[in-house]
Amino acid sequence: MIDTAVFERFLAKPGKKFRLAGFDTEWQGPKSLRKLEDEERKKRAQEYVRESLKSLSEEQERLWAQDQHSVLVILQAMDAAGKDGLIKHVMSGLNPQGVTVSSFKRPSEDELDHDFLWRCCSRLPRRGEIGIFNRSYYEEVLVVRVHPEFLRYQRLPDAKPGRKFWEQRYESINDFEKHLSRNGYTILKFFLHVSREEQKKRFLERLDTPEKNWKFSENDVKERQYWDEYMGAFEEAIGATSTRQAPWYVIPADNKWMARSLAAGIMAKAIADLPLEMPVISAEKKEAFAEARRQLENEPAD
Amino acid sequence: MIDTAVFERFLAKPGKKFRLAGFDTEWQGPKSLRKLEDEERKKRAQEYVRESLKSLSEEQERLWAQDQHSVLVILQAMDAAGKDGLIKHVMSGLNPQGVTVSSFKRPSEDELDHDFLWRCCSRLPRRGEIGIFNRSYYEEVLVVRVHPEFLRYQRLPDAKPGRKFWEQRYESINDFEKHLSRNGYTILKFFLHVSREEQKKRFLERLDTPEKNWKFSENDVKERQYWDEYMGAFEEAIGATSTRQAPWYVIPADNKWMARSLAAGIMAKAIADLPLEMPVISAEKKEAFAEARRQLENEPAD
Repeated sequence: MIDTAVFERFLAKPGKKFRLAGFDTEWQGPKSLRKLEDEERKKRAQEYVRESLKSLSEEQERLWAQDQHSVLVILQAMDAAGKDGLIKHVMSGLNPQGVTVSSFKRPSEDELDHDFLWRCCSRLPRRGEIGIFNRSYYEEVLVVRVHPEFLRYQRLPDAKPGRKFWEQRYESINDFEKHLSRNGYTILKFFLHVSREEQKKRFLERLDTPEKNWKFSENDVKERQYWDEYMGAFEEAIGATSTRQAPWYVIPADNKWMARSLAAGIMAKAIADLPLEMPVISAEKKEAFAEARRQLENEPAD
Repeated sequence: MIDTAVFERFLAKPGKKFRLAGFDTEWQGPKSLRKLEDEERKKRAQEYVRESLKSLSEEQERLWAQDQHSVLVILQAMDAAGKDGLIKHVMSGLNPQGVTVSSFKRPSEDELDHDFLWRCCSRLPRRGEIGIFNRSYYEEVLVVRVHPEFLRYQRLPDAKPGRKFWEQRYESINDFEKHLSRNGYTILKFFLHVSREEQKKRFLERLDTPEKNWKFSENDVKERQYWDEYMGAFEEAIGATSTRQAPWYVIPADNKWMARSLAAGIMAKAIADLPLEMPVISAEKKEAFAEARRQLENEPAD
């Protein structure tokens, strides 16, 4: 597995000035990997993904057994950055009983009728569970930031989308995440960082490959015109909301295997770092176990 | 109607040291009322309630028509303080389409599986609506404060119910209410302040009156033993969470009509103070109205 020490490199350091420019989109892995021949490198990379998923799967079992902590994973990215594929891969390593995936698309009437955290709040994972948010309340400071005209639909009294308005949204988000973290939630936020070039390549693939056509939407290409505005919104939002208790990781996403391996690895490590003791079996319970064993062993043979 | 200037007297002043002892449970109304003969006073009191409800009803219509602001009313009190009766009376003056009442009793398994704000969050009123919470997340710093052993059911990792723990809960609540208030919510919190003597009287009534027997629970009398602890918990919670954007009112509740009249009056005034402009009809729309009128008027007679 990728050395977990490497994860630090992708962390948006809490309390530090954040610059997206400092983060690579096409990282090819540690030196030991980069120096390999193409064929060998590909094989090793796939091993990394497999190992990360295996480790995550083991950690999930402890999380579920202990039933006190919850893990919330938030995924944000530009279109075609690989969120859906990442979720599919990460899920393949998890016990579906202990994980929920929630996708937040265009808000419904009922959702617009409440505050901007409301719809995500109701989809929080239970204790012992992992919850994956495919997009989240961060859309409220990303797409809504780039298109403040969307605010109209929220019918907020007296909404003036100036500096103070966005800062208050960051504050609401930070307060909410602080509350969650104090109440047993471990929060991980991943920005899948894809380059403008790579996005173009993937859009063209969707257009050129009949089986991928369904993924293409004209609107995605229209949104691409706002690339710089989106990068500005991401930079500011990540800088303002990467906290010790709910850190942002900027995951290089030009290589899908890299994004998947890092995301699974960071999740596994975060759970491993929790003080998860397996439920202790009391002396009384052990006696009951022994009795159950006697009963089973003394059953008349069929 | 009771002069609205009187409401200030029941406000727990934000940022000021709060002492429950400064608040009366048996206030009999303004001097003009107290000096009246019994019969006359009762009549006038009933007028007060009627007038408050009428005013609230008018304000609700504006709230509903404008469809931007929401009003959240939180009721907390000792048993038999009159929460249920108050809700029934206040509701009688409201259009039920624009109001929801949510009662928070013993939390369910699913609710205990989330953070302590979660179950209330999902019951927030929509824009244009009034939401009444019969008990709320404040139970988490009241009954749970008096009985910290209940925390066990919440399975919080590493919960040590010391000073810091409760202060963090106050902070979570304040942050949550600040977020709501910035997103169109007007929050009013009422502590129905009943005396220990009056509670005893009402319990005995429930025991002595067959039609009221169903309201009586032995557990209520058991909880009464913790009266001082509850008063301490109320005093601290109200002091820590009465804010400009979500103030607490300590409503004298030994007289039911007084509590009802004040609660309805304070609600009506809070809505009246909102900048609620009725939706403006555009020139275009006015033309469409004129056309609709012509069409109606030109319908062939039956």
